[in-house]
Amino acid sequence: MGTVLGPGDSTLARTGSDHVRAWFASDGVTQASEKELDHRLDRMAREFLQAREASTDISLAELAGYFRESRVPEEPADLKAYLSALAEPVVRHSTHTASPRFIGHMTSALPYFVRPLSKLVTALNQNMVKSETAKALTPLERQALAMMHRLVFGCPDEFYEKHQDDHGSTLGAVVSGGTVANMTALWCARNAALGPVEGFAGVEQEGLAAGLRAHGHTGAVVLASSLAHYSVQKSADLLGLGSRGLVKVPTGPDGRLDLPELRRVLHDCRRARQRVIAVVGVAGTTDTGAIDPLPEMAEIASEAGVHFHVDAAWAGPLLFSEEHRHRLAGIERADSVTMDGHKQLYLPMGIGMVFLRDPELARCIEKQARYIVRPRSVDLGKRALEGSRPAMALFLHAALSLIGRRGYGALIDEGIRKTRYLAGEVRRRPDFELLTDPVINIVVYRHVPARWRPKAWAPADNAALNAHNERLQKAQRRAGRTFVSRTTLDHTRYGQTLSIVGLRAVLANPLTTESDIDAVLEDQAAVAQSLAN
Amino acid sequence: MGTVLGPGDSTLARTGSDHVRAWFASDGVTQASEKELDHRLDRMAREFLQAREASTDISLAELAGYFRESRVPEEPADLKAYLSALAEPVVRHSTHTASPRFIGHMTSALPYFVRPLSKLVTALNQNMVKSETAKALTPLERQALAMMHRLVFGCPDEFYEKHQDDHGSTLGAVVSGGTVANMTALWCARNAALGPVEGFAGVEQEGLAAGLRAHGHTGAVVLASSLAHYSVQKSADLLGLGSRGLVKVPTGPDGRLDLPELRRVLHDCRRARQRVIAVVGVAGTTDTGAIDPLPEMAEIASEAGVHFHVDAAWAGPLLFSEEHRHRLAGIERADSVTMDGHKQLYLPMGIGMVFLRDPELARCIEKQARYIVRPRSVDLGKRALEGSRPAMALFLHAALSLIGRRGYGALIDEGIRKTRYLAGEVRRRPDFELLTDPVINIVVYRHVPARWRPKAWAPADNAALNAHNERLQKAQRRAGRTFVSRTTLDHTRYGQTLSIVGLRAVLANPLTTESDIDAVLEDQAAVAQSLAN
Repeated sequence: MGTVLGPGDSTLARTGSDHVRAWFASDGVTQASEKELDHRLDRMAREFLQAREASTDISLAELAGYFRESRVPEEPADLKAYLSALAEPVVRHSTHTASPRFIGHMTSALPYFVRPLSKLVTALNQNMVKSETAKALTPLERQALAMMHRLVFGCPDEFYEKHQDDHGSTLGAVVSGGTVANMTALWCARNAALGPVEGFAGVEQEGLAAGLRAHGHTGAVVLASSLAHYSVQKSADLLGLGSRGLVKVPTGPDGRLDLPELRRVLHDCRRARQRVIAVVGVAGTTDTGAIDPLPEMAEIASEAGVHFHVDAAWAGPLLFSEEHRHRLAGIERADSVTMDGHKQLYLPMGIGMVFLRDPELARCIEKQARYIVRPRSVDLGKRALEGSRPAMALFLHAALSLIGRRGYGALIDEGIRKTRYLAGEVRRRPDFELLTDPVINIVVYRHVPARWRPKAWAPADNAALNAHNERLQKAQRRAGRTFVSRTTLDHTRYGQTLSIVGLRAVLANPLTTESDIDAVLEDQAAVAQSLAN
Repeated sequence: MGTVLGPGDSTLARTGSDHVRAWFASDGVTQASEKELDHRLDRMAREFLQAREASTDISLAELAGYFRESRVPEEPADLKAYLSALAEPVVRHSTHTASPRFIGHMTSALPYFVRPLSKLVTALNQNMVKSETAKALTPLERQALAMMHRLVFGCPDEFYEKHQDDHGSTLGAVVSGGTVANMTALWCARNAALGPVEGFAGVEQEGLAAGLRAHGHTGAVVLASSLAHYSVQKSADLLGLGSRGLVKVPTGPDGRLDLPELRRVLHDCRRARQRVIAVVGVAGTTDTGAIDPLPEMAEIASEAGVHFHVDAAWAGPLLFSEEHRHRLAGIERADSVTMDGHKQLYLPMGIGMVFLRDPELARCIEKQARYIVRPRSVDLGKRALEGSRPAMALFLHAALSLIGRRGYGALIDEGIRKTRYLAGEVRRRPDFELLTDPVINIVVYRHVPARWRPKAWAPADNAALNAHNERLQKAQRRAGRTFVSRTTLDHTRYGQTLSIVGLRAVLANPLTTESDIDAVLEDQAAVAQSLAN
């Protein structure tokens, strides 16, 4: 195996740089090694993808024991030995995110074409920061961004003809994930809100403290519902507003931002001469999938002259569904929108997107350098948080082409249908209680042991129920047959004084069937039973 | 082909969700489709990787013409048609970053094992934000970070035993690239510099303006050489200091930061009650590969009580070389260090790293959420700029194991040796002028047509020489046979009053031979000749 798999493999160090170079070659010997390795890793991947259970039952502490060595190996490892270590512990104990019974997070099985495409993306090794290192991928990414921009904002043909490839325009950015997308949007919003005025060159140049002084503000804040993703708070810290610069607007028991509260907070900020950098609407909260009242928020933000950002990292792809896209009405009035490719676009991890309604907005974050991203270039790195980055846009482009609007629509419809099935089963079974009526494909419920039934428990029992559900979720996770996550809801039909620990299911995997859903609930009942014994 | 390649392919929309689901399955039919697609993409990749020339000669405008449609396709594309479009224009006109004659940017050929590994990483689809979705990859990443931390800081065994897997410790972070690594380091530095004091909860909570007031500063700045990467300026803007919050310290003609100037700037900042958030040392400037005087800078920063960050995105891997690691002496005194995997660690695009000497430093950026990243978890997303992200650490782990310290050392040595060869050739040829003595594997030179020889031109000729070299680089790029980049140097042996346009070569590709280097110079001479005609 040694001679086929690694040109020069463990003799590398003894024989010097010729062998190192051989690993990079595209000649027959290296191609044969690559093919052989590919074959072996494919076999590992195939087994991994066929797993039905959510994970193995090894403990985290035991698993960590495999990875204790903290020195870079002096000599190259034997490839055969490394492949064994890849097989076990790495692949064997990785989380089965593609399992139809792993319905606890926003990861899923992926369409088959993304795996071969990954290899192509790596082989091309393009760097999207500038067109000199991404000649064809630059217009391809601009096209994919235009398609998504059009899906969100629906501007006319002329708009895309003008802006898609214009060096002065930025329809959006492909970024590493939703967090960087939210940061990018709020960065643009901050720099636009505190732009140049007489005697002040703008916050981009002079910084936040000077910006507040020049504009006569006592502080700057972002407003979002208390259920906004924690990346909004992270952005507030990063951008210099402080974590408390995210003002959390209360929600109703349905998880949607409370509009009168938003108006009140805006009013209070104005009175305190706080500059509101942005109002953030959530389209699909991480907790329960709730969608904020976007049209009304757009109106309120517009009246107040404030940037309106919509974090649609999760629910954005509802736009593909004839049946469900109406739930995102108002998103077209946003100034910026976040979406995630590795969530409901079913792309590999590592692709987020931000879309900007005004193609000139991102000029307020523009940076240049003399070795790259020069002023009149079409380089994508000119107005972006990240620098060098991979051609993840190829996955997006391929999926938009190969799945198409109707294909994505069908995936969305199917996930929501199955979520309703789960909710129905939870309602039907006496040992479970539904905590949220699912709006999209996330549902939160809990297990209620017999002694707390019928559900006429006193509030004082809630702590015990919470502890029970936390224990249950941890034991279920440890056992590894099925998986849901857990969260804590502060505002439910029981009011705002009880924090309720819930089991959280996300129905995004197209492979999950009704019988898998039944199996998850039955597994939870069985785990609960064994905890009781 | 249709029946093998796409289960349900273009009939998807007509036949509904069953076919959509089939694309995600791991059954025999989908496996056969995946295998067939893999085979076809492999063939494309193989041809691509065998290209000797740097790129094709299609113009950017013509290329953009292929990507004009701005609507998401309604129905799924025919897979055969999509593959044709992938072959040409996408793959055919992608930049040949692996070509031995593409020696202009920090991209290179990659070792063969990263391509099959890409597919495995996508198949595993782990989300590194928390261990629930990255059970084995979490300790694997922590191990890879510890290995690199040890390479940089060389702490004793007990240190790694204590901190490697401790939920309260952060030895570093794997991020999407060097830019985010620098941002993360400076974010930590800012939050630590303006931490909680009596009556103030810290900049993380209360923001920058309040932080400056509470600490009695008039402003906050970062100090770095004028040749620091533009991501440092981007960070200064993002963090609220403003682009001008990056105070650029002059360099000598060798591109290294001027120490007396640094002392002077520090003194001026102190007098103006400006808080210096960090002093940034560059280990390998993008322009010329210069390495700042790190030991002296560490001393100065330490005396001033200021965070010392080293941006070693490019030159960090010199630490693997017995011959050259001495050039990075002083890096072990840094508080934080940036490195890039997709540069001289020869990993695919999309992996940067930041390392922190103090494992508790990152607590000042910690965020939590109730669905993930809870307080006592080992979740990697707790103290990180990004949220969901792919298991890029697997590439790092594999390469450290399979290439080892000596393998990487040989690659580094070889690149520097070849750079000296190029510099020698430039010196030897009358039509070229060496602008920088290479320290590592970057060299800047220019073409000097006969009419400006012997090199006794008047300063007034410099503009014409600049224009000539810019034209030359653009024509060379357009022709596509070979590639170097270009930059502008402000401080050379000609002093600081002349800005000089230079041709910039980066010798990172292990496949580049002396004859490739000769071919690049000869191509430039030929392009210059044809421009003259």
